[in-house]
Amino acid sequence: MAGGMIRVVPGRAAQAVNLLRTVQFTHPPSCPCHANPSHHHHGHSVAPAITRFADRTSRRGYATPQDPSQLKEYAFEMAASSIRFGPGATREVGMDLTNMHVKRVCVVTDETVDKLDAMKTVRAALAQEGLDFRVFNKTKVEPKDYSIKEAIEWAKPYDPDAFVAVGGGSVIDTAKLMNLYASYPEADFMDFVNAPLGKGRPIDRKLRPLIAIPTTSGTGSETTGTAIFDLTTHHAKTGIAHRNLKPTLGICDPLNTRTMPSAVAASSGLDVLCHSLESWTAIPFNERTPRPTNPILRPAYQGANPISDIFSLNALRAAVKYLPRAVHDPEDFEAQSEMLLAATLAGVGFGNAGVHLCHGMSYPISGQNPGYRHAGYEVSSPIIPHGVSVAVTAPAVFRFTGASNPERHLAAAEAFGVDISNVKRESAGEVLAEALTKFLADLGDQPAGLKALGFGAEHIDQLVEGTIPQARVLMLAPGLATELEAERGQLRRLFEEAMEH
Amino acid sequence: MAGGMIRVVPGRAAQAVNLLRTVQFTHPPSCPCHANPSHHHHGHSVAPAITRFADRTSRRGYATPQDPSQLKEYAFEMAASSIRFGPGATREVGMDLTNMHVKRVCVVTDETVDKLDAMKTVRAALAQEGLDFRVFNKTKVEPKDYSIKEAIEWAKPYDPDAFVAVGGGSVIDTAKLMNLYASYPEADFMDFVNAPLGKGRPIDRKLRPLIAIPTTSGTGSETTGTAIFDLTTHHAKTGIAHRNLKPTLGICDPLNTRTMPSAVAASSGLDVLCHSLESWTAIPFNERTPRPTNPILRPAYQGANPISDIFSLNALRAAVKYLPRAVHDPEDFEAQSEMLLAATLAGVGFGNAGVHLCHGMSYPISGQNPGYRHAGYEVSSPIIPHGVSVAVTAPAVFRFTGASNPERHLAAAEAFGVDISNVKRESAGEVLAEALTKFLADLGDQPAGLKALGFGAEHIDQLVEGTIPQARVLMLAPGLATELEAERGQLRRLFEEAMEH
Repeated sequence: MAGGMIRVVPGRAAQAVNLLRTVQFTHPPSCPCHANPSHHHHGHSVAPAITRFADRTSRRGYATPQDPSQLKEYAFEMAASSIRFGPGATREVGMDLTNMHVKRVCVVTDETVDKLDAMKTVRAALAQEGLDFRVFNKTKVEPKDYSIKEAIEWAKPYDPDAFVAVGGGSVIDTAKLMNLYASYPEADFMDFVNAPLGKGRPIDRKLRPLIAIPTTSGTGSETTGTAIFDLTTHHAKTGIAHRNLKPTLGICDPLNTRTMPSAVAASSGLDVLCHSLESWTAIPFNERTPRPTNPILRPAYQGANPISDIFSLNALRAAVKYLPRAVHDPEDFEAQSEMLLAATLAGVGFGNAGVHLCHGMSYPISGQNPGYRHAGYEVSSPIIPHGVSVAVTAPAVFRFTGASNPERHLAAAEAFGVDISNVKRESAGEVLAEALTKFLADLGDQPAGLKALGFGAEHIDQLVEGTIPQARVLMLAPGLATELEAERGQLRRLFEEAMEH
Repeated sequence: MAGGMIRVVPGRAAQAVNLLRTVQFTHPPSCPCHANPSHHHHGHSVAPAITRFADRTSRRGYATPQDPSQLKEYAFEMAASSIRFGPGATREVGMDLTNMHVKRVCVVTDETVDKLDAMKTVRAALAQEGLDFRVFNKTKVEPKDYSIKEAIEWAKPYDPDAFVAVGGGSVIDTAKLMNLYASYPEADFMDFVNAPLGKGRPIDRKLRPLIAIPTTSGTGSETTGTAIFDLTTHHAKTGIAHRNLKPTLGICDPLNTRTMPSAVAASSGLDVLCHSLESWTAIPFNERTPRPTNPILRPAYQGANPISDIFSLNALRAAVKYLPRAVHDPEDFEAQSEMLLAATLAGVGFGNAGVHLCHGMSYPISGQNPGYRHAGYEVSSPIIPHGVSVAVTAPAVFRFTGASNPERHLAAAEAFGVDISNVKRESAGEVLAEALTKFLADLGDQPAGLKALGFGAEHIDQLVEGTIPQARVLMLAPGLATELEAERGQLRRLFEEAMEH
């Protein structure tokens, strides 16, 4: 709880640090792709439903002559891909492309998925429509900047007028970036990469149609404008995020997720759980600064808002109910279907609100893996699956964020079946942390903390330094200090507390 | 309740009638724009969350060689305009258009709204961006086919590359059709009009950008692919509906709805209430036939589905909570803001699920007005506002549909604050009807039935005949008979029961 108690009022020091950050990022201070100059301790309003439109700044809208970089946001935007959901819907993709007057299609997948029924169905559907298509199946799991650049170069000579992605988040994210750079052939790769690592240039061109067909129930990438990859040049996990990057259509076909091994169902499902919990508990949109000077600068990760809340809370309830069933019974088609729907709902939620600490801390955890091999993953090299690296810190994270908005943390605990009628507001974080710990234990095969992954006290400094650059998500973390040293201290304590739960 | 008890198993007779209807509409039987050949008594599954993906037909997907016109739907599609919500967001519209690389803009409004701050802000925002724009302010309330054709002809010579609609549903719907026919200059007006009255041609071209800025909290037209108007040649209310007709962006700015008179807030809010109740209780998507042979033929009004349900139920709860406050206190900005959000959420819900009896019956009620003038509407001629004509039959309608899915009707009653813990399933419709009756009475200035509007027994036959052509919504009405005479009988009883509540 200690971290949750810290209060850092952003004074001159903090603002100086942020000014330095800003200068160092060589960006206009009004660009919201930045670390948020005031992501100080603002939790959700005590009763969002009552006060979320009552903020005077918001009511007065733009009529304030102040420096926009100091103004809070007053609006939120809800954008999501069209979603088609149904067992067998995959076969409609050929007709969809014809309806879009498409002729040349680039199908993006990986070598594993290329052998599955999903790709058989897609090939048949495209062939039936007489479409000219080529398949790129060299996508890498946890894509790297160079693997994405290879994919982009592969697509250039073919110059398709549409893309179809068939696979998990890595495949869909790679396809998004193949599509992006096909429309910006002259751009430098770093132009669109999230600040602070990249220039965070907004996407102001209409991209080509992209139809995403997920084969896992996790990332929700079929609905979001986000693509995540390893920036090997900076030894950091980052990405490109803009709502104009989102697919045209997501085809969610439960027949395609039946092939997930139980271990993959578990880790991808834990990603869904954390997407919903983090977006539900992220700082509210109207506490985010700076207020964008142009709507195209409004980030996709804009903080919790009244529409993302609906998606996040529903996805959370569904994940709690159906993930254990989907993991424990590979034949439970209903649970699998509900988890695919939950992944998509959570995708709409966090795609418009954002994620925070679990995801921000997960990138160094996966990247600095001391040698852990997750059970059920047949791979040549050590791997901490994304969902596992996200969920392993969740109890510590929500124990820390609980103080920022007890009501939301209690509502989340209730979604786990906890009777909150007699729980004190001060215990909200603790109660949610306990519910998460129990959920992870009951799910089975989950590490009971960073120690079980092989991390020790000696790794913490490096884990902290690997988290600091995740400005885009840290800015949405309630209760996290602005001042760099204070932030380091909080992250250090979070990693320490995440060693064992 | 009598109507609800009727069970019509679609036998040869019913199918023959539907074959006749089909032939008479001169459409391929696979076109789902039709009256549904089997909108027989299928309510929601008793526990949608449990069985909604368990339907065997769905699980087997398309691998069934049967006549598609007899197959049930197996997928649903969720499409909605991007929504930006915030007080003051209207002023961003100029930058949005510049970001879309637009040069010539057609602004659509009406003479009343043209004098309001919303239009001042829009003119200023477009001027600030140096955009070439012209304002069409001749939109008619409750638009007619000829008023829409005039608007279309007005736009042709200007040939704008984008549209901005500023006003209520009538304005936004008119702008949608100006945009549609700008992209189909060669088309006949009736090509796209909903079957059975029109040809129900699907929209297979990319329309120009349309930004919708609502000034009422009602239709949710800023998010939907629906445009409603009077087809004077047929003396019927109909429209054009296809998801590709939806606006690019809806800018929901609570500053723009502050100008609504209390009576307009009430009637538009009742439209929201019925949008959410009707979409929540519509037949489920996987009971709808025929299964479309091409995804572009999947109707926007596809029946209740797991995503529309989330929107509809949340919108219902918000309307119950905030509509009375918005109506009784013109200064309650928070309630006004929440009602604007509720209207948009309900729009996403019914825009993807549909409405049924309240809306189907409302069109002849408004159209055949015996001379009623609604209090608070300063108009030269008699008027039954849309929301009033929708809500006046609601108690009778939900008493009738209750038997089709008691659980959903009980959940709706609960949203009105009814303690349902000891309510029998058989009483679900009755309990919801009573809750609605009380809600309408407490809201004030609402007619206590058709009698209060000046209708009598002598009008019922004509009201029934005016409802029958609303196939597109009637096909989604749970419990409504397929066989034409039985349907007439049920509608007659509904109008009789709606005389007084």
